[in-house]
Amino acid sequence: MKTFRKELVFNVPTRRAFINITPEVEQCLSESGIQEGLVLVNAMHITASVFINDDESGLHYDYDQWLEKLAPHAPVSQYRHNVGEDNADAHMKRQIMGREVVVAVTGGRLDFGTWEQIFYGEFDGRRPKRVLIKIIGE
Amino acid sequence: MKTFRKELVFNVPTRRAFINITPEVEQCLSESGIQEGLVLVNAMHITASVFINDDESGLHYDYDQWLEKLAPHAPVSQYRHNVGEDNADAHMKRQIMGREVVVAVTGGRLDFGTWEQIFYGEFDGRRPKRVLIKIIGE
Amino acid sequence: MKTFRKELVFNVPTRRAFINITPEVEQCLSESGIQEGLVLVNAMHITASVFINDDESGLHYDYDQWLEKLAPHAPVSQYRHNVGEDNADAHMKRQIMGREVVVAVTGGRLDFGTWEQIFYGEFDGRRPKRVLIKIIGE
Repeated sequence: MKTFRKELVFNVPTRRAFINITPEVEQCLSESGIQEGLVLVNAMHITASVFINDDESGLHYDYDQWLEKLAPHAPVSQYRHNVGEDNADAHMKRQIMGREVVVAVTGGRLDFGTWEQIFYGEFDGRRPKRVLIKIIGE
Repeated sequence: MKTFRKELVFNVPTRRAFINITPEVEQCLSESGIQEGLVLVNAMHITASVFINDDESGLHYDYDQWLEKLAPHAPVSQYRHNVGEDNADAHMKRQIMGREVVVAVTGGRLDFGTWEQIFYGEFDGRRPKRVLIKIIGE
Repeated sequence: MKTFRKELVFNVPTRRAFINITPEVEQCLSESGIQEGLVLVNAMHITASVFINDDESGLHYDYDQWLEKLAPHAPVSQYRHNVGEDNADAHMKRQIMGREVVVAVTGGRLDFGTWEQIFYGEFDGRRPKRVLIKIIGE
């Protein structure tokens, strides 16, 4: 069994953003030399997500509006977590979008449907935050 | 390490449906001959889910109503994604229900609790769509 | 390839609770002797979650309030699943928080960011319920 590990770092200038990280994951898979196995990609922070969906700016706008409706940022005083913090909503948005994805590796490639792309979802940015890529297989 | 890969195809006649795919996953596991490891089952489309819950028709009705409340289909004009499309809500419903499940394989069986069953969740059907089963182990 | 399997049992006296199970998972990893691989931790019941977030009591209170807003327990008659049951809301809360987590194992340790902790999320307690830990690697 072979394994591969790499961290990516993102320093998003805004509070929230969605970043397509598929090329970085593909690059890691290529470096690993693994042909068959599984890739785990996870946020290492608890106010961020890694998820798979469409690389379409209209949808990303819709996601942002929708998450803000389901877990509003303001008023920050509505959350007990917000004592010296203002990011309780980010902990909720991340649960809806998910912490991690597991992707099959087949023939040395991410085994994806036509429109699947991997995103880093930032809900409390403006500081460096990490994503972990771990690959196991042969 | 052994690996196994298979795609399932579903052509749901309605926009939304939940289909129990546990027998198909068990059949794949049996074909693979893998005794110990992990099974990944994921939707290959970004308006569909694979999730684990109860095979109970009342609950499935409740899920459908609940998802429609959290991410309504209509009016389709409320979503920027819906330019020449009408499925933005399906991209949201899928995030709540999840893209994938990872299940332990123990003694050649899906290592499940009493009521765990695997479902394909369709949120934008009426065309053929794929699910990936990838098994790794020994 | 090595594999390890263990079940944890929780008998929560209340309907809902969040329990930090990171020490138990670390103990399993240590027992397994696995240095590089993946850990799967999943609820074996469909009204419970395993998720990764912050060990902060204010946030847990916020999560409980938020989940109750998105999927209210009462009136129980609003759900078709609640025929001789009253836990339809628990099946929904569990979908938002998720069934499982997959965590990288690196150098014999859970490969975690600073604040990542693993929780058992109970949404229909007052009876013994199980969590599965499955580790694969070398």
